[in-house]
Amino acid sequence: MAVRDRIAAGLAHGEIDTRDGESVRRGTVALVGAGPGDPELITVRGRRLLAAATVVVVDRLAPGLLLDELAPDVEVVDASKIPYGPQATQDEINRILVDRARAGAFVVRLKGGDPFVFGRGGEELQACAEAGVPVTVVPGVTSAIAAPAAAGIPVTHRGVVHEFVVVSGHVAPDDPASLVDWAGLGRMRGTVCVLMGLRNLPAIAAALISNGRDPGTPAAVVQDGATDRQRVVRARLDRIAGAATEAGVRAPGVVVIGEVVDVLPAIGPVTSW
Amino acid sequence: MAVRDRIAAGLAHGEIDTRDGESVRRGTVALVGAGPGDPELITVRGRRLLAAATVVVVDRLAPGLLLDELAPDVEVVDASKIPYGPQATQDEINRILVDRARAGAFVVRLKGGDPFVFGRGGEELQACAEAGVPVTVVPGVTSAIAAPAAAGIPVTHRGVVHEFVVVSGHVAPDDPASLVDWAGLGRMRGTVCVLMGLRNLPAIAAALISNGRDPGTPAAVVQDGATDRQRVVRARLDRIAGAATEAGVRAPGVVVIGEVVDVLPAIGPVTSW
Repeated sequence: MAVRDRIAAGLAHGEIDTRDGESVRRGTVALVGAGPGDPELITVRGRRLLAAATVVVVDRLAPGLLLDELAPDVEVVDASKIPYGPQATQDEINRILVDRARAGAFVVRLKGGDPFVFGRGGEELQACAEAGVPVTVVPGVTSAIAAPAAAGIPVTHRGVVHEFVVVSGHVAPDDPASLVDWAGLGRMRGTVCVLMGLRNLPAIAAALISNGRDPGTPAAVVQDGATDRQRVVRARLDRIAGAATEAGVRAPGVVVIGEVVDVLPAIGPVTSW
Repeated sequence: MAVRDRIAAGLAHGEIDTRDGESVRRGTVALVGAGPGDPELITVRGRRLLAAATVVVVDRLAPGLLLDELAPDVEVVDASKIPYGPQATQDEINRILVDRARAGAFVVRLKGGDPFVFGRGGEELQACAEAGVPVTVVPGVTSAIAAPAAAGIPVTHRGVVHEFVVVSGHVAPDDPASLVDWAGLGRMRGTVCVLMGLRNLPAIAAALISNGRDPGTPAAVVQDGATDRQRVVRARLDRIAGAATEAGVRAPGVVVIGEVVDVLPAIGPVTSW
């Protein structure tokens, strides 16, 4: 079977499989987005598949409380504890997904946020498909939208902004390996949501400003968004990095930049609830 | 109480309210994202609040199957049937939310996708806060990410693209009322996801190309994504509008443009499953 047909079969299989009231089929993999942090923000389907899993391969960012619900005989693999380098680690995760499924498991790969938003879900889907393992994808609520929302910041707002961009800040703007068009982002006036950007925030803010974004643009950092540890720091774009450092903000955090930060009445400079 | 404090109280109230095992408090409003179409892609919290609602104000795009689960004494208000013009309609929806809550209802405003992604959730949150009605927001899976995912298209892919932009295509690019920076979007090389853009797709594709996007960029239209009516049409950017028309694609549909469209093995030019 061609790889494209295997993916089609896998997606269709997952789709049908989760509808007919039967338990999910062993020997398959589901890539499930766990949402932004609150264990109740997983989808109904995601939670149902999780409850049926015989193996769960979990990320650091997936809510730990979801794992407490698992039956005691479920094997939980903590992907964040796999050593080696970044690509070796991903290869190892891919190998675990494929091997466990081939051994007859129903494997749920539980990922923070959405599997396809910087989640490397595409690589895992491809690895399963190439190995002939049926695979399905269950999308999740992305923290790029939900963390600002939990702080009262809508990423779009009628009459103010009708576009938002989501970027990874993991690689510094001046790093030749960066795939993000920071110059282009500096010129646009839409909302910019940066994931994994706390460490590089000074360079990111500087890159946006030097490429034309108004230094006075409202900005916010939402740490641990949509959890009971949530903290919000608000400042102008040219001061947000300093304000975040001063407040001792730590990862995981979402940076949101744009007029929308101020469009609703603020809930305070640093609010915990 | 200042509006900012009312919002803080409302958000905090909703947050606490849904955690303590008590039924949700009457006299409040929850803005709930229903997800991209499949009734199982609502969040666990969203479904729980929906089950506790005494009034549900529903959009055309929210999955109808979710309403079948409601108790018979729940009042369902179909917002898509409210006449008048666009702003008058929104004012009327805001009035219904506030009035029902003040009368003691627990009101769920059920919206397709996410409340803050072109969902006018910000306006509704503001209306509730200004009226002193506690309001909470439950984010949803946005079809901007989930419809491509259901077609096997990841909006980001390691080593290929680390940014994606989500825009509304509701207003044509050459309309002075457009708030979208189509020129800027044409110059960037990230993934572009267009919601509500089917009618304007010829003009949108032309605007991107005339501003520098490669006419050979892979593109796809996903109609009724993440439902059993899903259809996918794939073509180069300069041919996608024609291909969609030829295939008879109808709203709702998500347009996705970028290298990611071809990054995983395709599931076919038009696939229904």
